[in-house]
Amino acid sequence: MSQESSEEYKGIISETSRVVSPELEKVLYKPFKVLDHGFIRVIDYMGNDSAIVQAARVSYGAGTKKTNLDRGLIHYLVRHRHTTPLEMCEIKLHIKLPIFVARQWIRHRTANVNEYSARYSILGKDFYVPEPEQCAVQSKTNMQGRGDILSKEESEKVRKLLIEDAERCYESYADMLNEDFEGNTLDDSKPKLTRELARMNLTLNYYTEWYWKIDLHNLLHFLNLRSDSHAQYEIRVYAEAMLDLVKKWCPFVYEAFEEYYLHGSYVSRKGLQVVQDMIAGKTTNQETSGMTKREWSELMEVLNKK
Amino acid sequence: MSQESSEEYKGIISETSRVVSPELEKVLYKPFKVLDHGFIRVIDYMGNDSAIVQAARVSYGAGTKKTNLDRGLIHYLVRHRHTTPLEMCEIKLHIKLPIFVARQWIRHRTANVNEYSARYSILGKDFYVPEPEQCAVQSKTNMQGRGDILSKEESEKVRKLLIEDAERCYESYADMLNEDFEGNTLDDSKPKLTRELARMNLTLNYYTEWYWKIDLHNLLHFLNLRSDSHAQYEIRVYAEAMLDLVKKWCPFVYEAFEEYYLHGSYVSRKGLQVVQDMIAGKTTNQETSGMTKREWSELMEVLNKK
Amino acid sequence: MSQESSEEYKGIISETSRVVSPELEKVLYKPFKVLDHGFIRVIDYMGNDSAIVQAARVSYGAGTKKTNLDRGLIHYLVRHRHTTPLEMCEIKLHIKLPIFVARQWIRHRTANVNEYSARYSILGKDFYVPEPEQCAVQSKTNMQGRGDILSKEESEKVRKLLIEDAERCYESYADMLNEDFEGNTLDDSKPKLTRELARMNLTLNYYTEWYWKIDLHNLLHFLNLRSDSHAQYEIRVYAEAMLDLVKKWCPFVYEAFEEYYLHGSYVSRKGLQVVQDMIAGKTTNQETSGMTKREWSELMEVLNKK
Amino acid sequence: MSQESSEEYKGIISETSRVVSPELEKVLYKPFKVLDHGFIRVIDYMGNDSAIVQAARVSYGAGTKKTNLDRGLIHYLVRHRHTTPLEMCEIKLHIKLPIFVARQWIRHRTANVNEYSARYSILGKDFYVPEPEQCAVQSKTNMQGRGDILSKEESEKVRKLLIEDAERCYESYADMLNEDFEGNTLDDSKPKLTRELARMNLTLNYYTEWYWKIDLHNLLHFLNLRSDSHAQYEIRVYAEAMLDLVKKWCPFVYEAFEEYYLHGSYVSRKGLQVVQDMIAGKTTNQETSGMTKREWSELMEVLNKK
Repeated sequence: MSQESSEEYKGIISETSRVVSPELEKVLYKPFKVLDHGFIRVIDYMGNDSAIVQAARVSYGAGTKKTNLDRGLIHYLVRHRHTTPLEMCEIKLHIKLPIFVARQWIRHRTANVNEYSARYSILGKDFYVPEPEQCAVQSKTNMQGRGDILSKEESEKVRKLLIEDAERCYESYADMLNEDFEGNTLDDSKPKLTRELARMNLTLNYYTEWYWKIDLHNLLHFLNLRSDSHAQYEIRVYAEAMLDLVKKWCPFVYEAFEEYYLHGSYVSRKGLQVVQDMIAGKTTNQETSGMTKREWSELMEVLNKK
Repeated sequence: MSQESSEEYKGIISETSRVVSPELEKVLYKPFKVLDHGFIRVIDYMGNDSAIVQAARVSYGAGTKKTNLDRGLIHYLVRHRHTTPLEMCEIKLHIKLPIFVARQWIRHRTANVNEYSARYSILGKDFYVPEPEQCAVQSKTNMQGRGDILSKEESEKVRKLLIEDAERCYESYADMLNEDFEGNTLDDSKPKLTRELARMNLTLNYYTEWYWKIDLHNLLHFLNLRSDSHAQYEIRVYAEAMLDLVKKWCPFVYEAFEEYYLHGSYVSRKGLQVVQDMIAGKTTNQETSGMTKREWSELMEVLNKK
Repeated sequence: MSQESSEEYKGIISETSRVVSPELEKVLYKPFKVLDHGFIRVIDYMGNDSAIVQAARVSYGAGTKKTNLDRGLIHYLVRHRHTTPLEMCEIKLHIKLPIFVARQWIRHRTANVNEYSARYSILGKDFYVPEPEQCAVQSKTNMQGRGDILSKEESEKVRKLLIEDAERCYESYADMLNEDFEGNTLDDSKPKLTRELARMNLTLNYYTEWYWKIDLHNLLHFLNLRSDSHAQYEIRVYAEAMLDLVKKWCPFVYEAFEEYYLHGSYVSRKGLQVVQDMIAGKTTNQETSGMTKREWSELMEVLNKK
Repeated sequence: MSQESSEEYKGIISETSRVVSPELEKVLYKPFKVLDHGFIRVIDYMGNDSAIVQAARVSYGAGTKKTNLDRGLIHYLVRHRHTTPLEMCEIKLHIKLPIFVARQWIRHRTANVNEYSARYSILGKDFYVPEPEQCAVQSKTNMQGRGDILSKEESEKVRKLLIEDAERCYESYADMLNEDFEGNTLDDSKPKLTRELARMNLTLNYYTEWYWKIDLHNLLHFLNLRSDSHAQYEIRVYAEAMLDLVKKWCPFVYEAFEEYYLHGSYVSRKGLQVVQDMIAGKTTNQETSGMTKREWSELMEVLNKK
């Protein structure tokens, strides 16, 4: 399935007695562009805010009917990490993403996946090249992060290397396959190397595609980790696109998620002591706190968060 | 949520661009009676036969479009245990079932569950009593099964004991709670024992309720085990009710499941040798086969299966 | 397997090249009493603090060798919820617990379980009766909690009801089975009801037993939830016994877990604003904060935590 | 951790009260070579054949003690897919494998993984090149398999392309990183591109490493699929190396696994009818059977299996 054909597909309108999410229906099947050649689109979903409330009321009984409004109940559930009712919602996405991003993504095990198989089929010639403003040096403080952006000249050198190597590798791939993307033989006098071997010659920035299905609780866990500023940019942009989808799908859950996950913070025992001392007007600093320098600076950041 | 109120609810008809399963839509929310006070009803679902085909084609590429029709592709997937496309379908059920059945059921871990909480709410006075024709002696050959049915007189004694004990336990439960099912205090001069303690006085045949959500692959695995003749009758009847729902939901999958799971059989290395010898007209028996008596009799049963 | 026989078993001393946890070896197989008839004992384990460090270094590479000592690295991992290295440790426990506790426990799905089967075997006559100081009324503020303790007289009435009902139910159970715990027929002239049916007559405070195997990451998640003051007392005492075992097994992990989970707290976006205002000396209260009364009182509790 | 250092490590001999697997102890930490630069070695394990028997007896009660010997009980469990006792054994492996193999492998979700991170650290220059006898054309009958082997000349052309592209890509990788594997800067006047970006220039045949921990039940499921003749050769060789390890670890389980999984076969409803007809001497063929040509030929293969 290519992006082109998917863009045209709008779905057939049917009647259903299931609960619906009106805002998500509007963007069903529509691909949202991510990175240079990637996309995310919703293929199907189950449940909405009210389905969570309904499931919570099975657990907590009729008594909750009178006292809680839906929004309040959802905030309560998210705040207290009572996440089983959130598992009652499910979403199925079609995603096109670079292989090195797919490798990080798949580490989240609580999802169902159907990936395009390069054992069966030939991969298209789409590969990721970072924009110049994404080409940065290795961070000196964060072993897994980025520091300063490269100069225009340096970033062009990087991009040129990436493009040349990806193109050359694809050329060899096509050469070994002796077949083009449409399945036409290139040279009848030559053999066609088996696809399961030829694919190993592609670089990790080539795009793959998959269907990915996950429940809302596990999706929020994924989004909390991957929309974080420490996550790699190339996966973070996918997380951000999915946050927009959650906002359409279950607006009350999204609101509570922002309040109790995205913009809140965990504070350790020592951190709570520092906060108490500060409120009481006592002098406190990194040395007296018993925290490491890094812990202290992370706490100070939290205490100035806007 | 009680069975009574649920029977009336039909759902609101909405428009959707999602795929639908027309036969399942017809029975959405409708409770199907199981045992004396139990039921199963579908609350929501995602996907249908065509969604499986669509997911399979993501994996196996455009090439499969031309050669396989949907039914053939689904049979192929089920036959070869290529189950990831089946994970793309999901169903959510509301089930009322005895606690001892719930304890077996929950051992299947790959599902989402929201159970009625007897810490929060008071359990109703519904308990399971087996029909006389279900009251049987312990099997002598099968450590976990049933043998001959009790005489009418003996089964009535059993049923009487079960009913009396369940009723007396509920009476004490209500007495300790000092509150009825509607939340009315029974005696203002007495305390109300916390629900999380009082509940322990109920017997294991009391009914509980839950929302249970599972993907089609894991549901079939559950149904294959629990619709088996060795499964306990009281869970098997729920499995049978769910098989009917799968038949409505994904008829091609159901058909393939019958052919390749329910009515097929695994044959061991020694079993295959016996079959080969029999076809070749060689004399073979339990002693020469190297099988245990039980293995041999199970193989003979398979070879006479209709 | 009964508690009695297990208490005698010390294990056979063997040589191994695997990593060991010396403090946990000392208590291997030893049952620690929990509640009136329950216990927890360690049957086996895999890994220790150093195994976590080793696994972390596979992920984070040689560079980490120089700069981090083991204890610091473990604190870092726990603080940042980098939990995959903690999954490299595994523990197997033998636990005897009331059925109503087992029903809560099993909701944690990421563990392996082998439970004593009352379809195969006869359950012993052990049931839980709460101590008088555990008999409390339903809380008025917390739908699922306990309030004031009952008077001595009232708690004795509760205990008497629980004991009488449990005993009467066991009597009927034995009567229907027509067989004692050792497998002796009681009355040759009567039938033996199948065990899978008879068991339903027992109350939920009867004890069951299981082997439960889980990795350290998921165990800590369980312990964080179940050692909380809002968890039911009868499961909390098991969590506390397991915390002691973790302390012996992986002392650095235990220390970090206390600092960053047990005695820390999550603070929401609004909560962080309140903290910032308080530190800045601004007037702030529940109304201005935008928090609900309950949220506000929970935050005040956190800010006074010792 | 490099293969070189690991080969020297033998572990420290300690005393333990845990059960041990004597044959597995002998090869602990020892790397077994797989493919051109890969390996598998056991880092740790929990349990052995007797631990499975012990767990089964918790479930099935004291009654089983008298009648079943250990070997018989294990065969019984494996034959009847009573797999929960097998989950009580766990193994931790250190594996070096090409990235395209790792991508297939990780699809098995029920395992714990710590992978070498190319965000943190620099990957070594090890890449996989298939032996000439592994270079084959795309199969015409099996969309995902190999057909005839290439001529010596053709396979050398393939290998040359793979080697040249992998080397050139690594050169660019090192160039962008401006740092060698030991962390030495190559050219002080140039920037060091962040590792999380540079890594995308490597081809999918580069080797990665991970710690992989799994229980015995899920390992057997993996091995059953991946040691199959339809699995890709490059993952099959790892499965075969692990089968040898299972044989050392739990010899009774291995024996039963061969009998009831590896060398047995599932037969469908139609297949059973064909077998019955053949035994009865009736004429039967693909047309009369209702099977597809492919199903029929697969059945005939099973009936001639040796």
